[in-house]
Amino acid sequence: MNQERLFARMKKDGLDAIVATMPENVTYSSGFWAMSQWIRRGPQAYVLTPGPGRGEPAVMASTGLIDLVADPSVWVKDVRRYGRFIVDRTPDVALGAHDLRIEQLLAQQEDSDAVSCLVRAIKDRGLDKATIGVDEIGILPQYWDKLAEALPNAKLVRAADVFRFARAIKTPEEVACLRKSAQIADKSIQAALAVAREGATEMDLARAFHGTTINEGGMPVLGCIGFGARSAMTNVQPSEYALKQGDIIRFDVGGRYGHYRADIARNGVLGEPTKKLVQYHRAICVGLDRAIEMIKPGVRACDVFEASVETVRREGIPHYRRSHVGHGIGLDGYDAPDIAPSNTAMFEEGMVICVETPYYEMGFGGLQVEDTLVITKDGVDSFMLSSTKLRVV
Amino acid sequence: MNQERLFARMKKDGLDAIVATMPENVTYSSGFWAMSQWIRRGPQAYVLTPGPGRGEPAVMASTGLIDLVADPSVWVKDVRRYGRFIVDRTPDVALGAHDLRIEQLLAQQEDSDAVSCLVRAIKDRGLDKATIGVDEIGILPQYWDKLAEALPNAKLVRAADVFRFARAIKTPEEVACLRKSAQIADKSIQAALAVAREGATEMDLARAFHGTTINEGGMPVLGCIGFGARSAMTNVQPSEYALKQGDIIRFDVGGRYGHYRADIARNGVLGEPTKKLVQYHRAICVGLDRAIEMIKPGVRACDVFEASVETVRREGIPHYRRSHVGHGIGLDGYDAPDIAPSNTAMFEEGMVICVETPYYEMGFGGLQVEDTLVITKDGVDSFMLSSTKLRVV
Repeated sequence: MNQERLFARMKKDGLDAIVATMPENVTYSSGFWAMSQWIRRGPQAYVLTPGPGRGEPAVMASTGLIDLVADPSVWVKDVRRYGRFIVDRTPDVALGAHDLRIEQLLAQQEDSDAVSCLVRAIKDRGLDKATIGVDEIGILPQYWDKLAEALPNAKLVRAADVFRFARAIKTPEEVACLRKSAQIADKSIQAALAVAREGATEMDLARAFHGTTINEGGMPVLGCIGFGARSAMTNVQPSEYALKQGDIIRFDVGGRYGHYRADIARNGVLGEPTKKLVQYHRAICVGLDRAIEMIKPGVRACDVFEASVETVRREGIPHYRRSHVGHGIGLDGYDAPDIAPSNTAMFEEGMVICVETPYYEMGFGGLQVEDTLVITKDGVDSFMLSSTKLRVV
Repeated sequence: MNQERLFARMKKDGLDAIVATMPENVTYSSGFWAMSQWIRRGPQAYVLTPGPGRGEPAVMASTGLIDLVADPSVWVKDVRRYGRFIVDRTPDVALGAHDLRIEQLLAQQEDSDAVSCLVRAIKDRGLDKATIGVDEIGILPQYWDKLAEALPNAKLVRAADVFRFARAIKTPEEVACLRKSAQIADKSIQAALAVAREGATEMDLARAFHGTTINEGGMPVLGCIGFGARSAMTNVQPSEYALKQGDIIRFDVGGRYGHYRADIARNGVLGEPTKKLVQYHRAICVGLDRAIEMIKPGVRACDVFEASVETVRREGIPHYRRSHVGHGIGLDGYDAPDIAPSNTAMFEEGMVICVETPYYEMGFGGLQVEDTLVITKDGVDSFMLSSTKLRVV
């Protein structure tokens, strides 16, 4: 967690404390991977982070997740639990550290729900008259109401944006996870291209892609893989369509590694590409290069957007238009900043971003190159293993 | 979608229309798989379903998902789109049906956000003074506020529970997906057990498990696989721990197929099991059998709970306690009903449920058998391919 940046923004926004409620923010501010919340909608897990000098952070977790909240990777040590869940224990057998921690947490008070835990944690810190930012994305509205009712003298403010702001600058540990995640996706594309031949289906490539992600220690998430005219569909989902001569192969893909997302894009073609395909692909690559070459701390996102789109137009797609040419990435697939025409914010060292110049043309196909990189003191450090080159298979 | 059941419950609750906002409910009520909403938190996609005689349903989708909302599998044909997204088109080339539909939708009005689309759809149907149920789980609070402001004469009611009620009885198409999803998980367990040998790690089995899920056309979601004492951790995440003689191997696993979840559990052991392990495993199997044997339309969930727990106690784990012995499954991993002591509701034909009798003992290990089945006219039809037997490897 980028505590310094979170605290700075909390101070600016006048927040005495902040509560994470969506899975990305819960994991971000505690190390707690609240599984049920990640794979379903509705389960509640929160992290209370008081501002400097206002007390220690606290996690509120369902007892059913007790083993995950007891994990050594969870750095927040004040854990409140709610709900009944039974775990037995062999008498007279020594337990390992993880089990001892579970036992310790099970011995603590059991609350009825996540908000009851949170209210207790807030009151214990004397924050019941404070201004508290609450990430509004993960908390169910009835729990927000319950929280407001239990803390009549506190001021509750929607604060998902504060987390989004803090998350934009990655810690070295986050950069390492994101690098690995991007590289797993890159290797998985190469594995999928290795099975591309006439008659191979989009599903065949998807199986090779996701299978490699699994083998490399990742978990599949995004797998848009489309051939021929189907590649023009932005979110193309792999089908039984079989590859034929001249077909484009477009990948827009990426899983998770250590909870961190990947999102990269590459293209191939079966057999010799047409002149138009070569020209268009070259144009988006040069446009991507132009963006990457400009990116460094102090440069405005909108200026990179303009230069990149202008380059693609000049280099071969005169009618090229885009709503953005990239975005941050982290625990969420779309972190700040957006590289969009309206975003006058400047890049900063430590941002990890996906830079992309996709082009979708119905009747022709889709082409997309997307790299992931971290912004350094004076430029960028790319995570990519492969070049953006159109891969002829 | 079980329209009959949804309409019956809407009538009971006095709802003139209902709005789906969480991914499970959006897909459920339209066939629209709103990808960004499934893989992230925050992106907004809605489906408006008016009650009988109150108008046709409508989907509100980001233009960035235009290809997915134009998919032939989406049965709601009134689509409203919001946000800018550029898709080009080759002139003078005939397009396929899917692309023509995309072109048609792109030619429609572009709204600024999902709520603007929704308000328009509601007004078009003369529902602006109606009582409208809104699934409160997927809509961001600022959008709820905006909706309320735009419809000052409408009454907005939280209605996620109405969808949960409707989703509990599956259509034949849903049963087919859930059967396939459970069977993929079952085959994946067998593939993982096939690599279980002394020195194999939990991660080795996880790779075999998820790899098989991928090969069978599924997507990985849940993969709790733990060996030895680690298997006592409810949500054990695969590690580099290596299997040794006498270790329990516990699986609590399941991916998605056709967007439908799986959740099943089985156990193995390396080498000869101890007497305690045999006795405990047998007890949970008999407890599971007892539950399954009782389940049919008209039987109360709480009665099955009591009988199942009582059976496990009598058959070999005298101190056995549980908070539930199963739950429904569908697009969501936990659909209604819960097989819990407080649930006096009766089983109904067409429910698909996971029945489970897990046991977690720190210092010893965890054992869990979980089957998925559909409730028929007079009993159940199990989806399982494998028996619950403790698998000695």
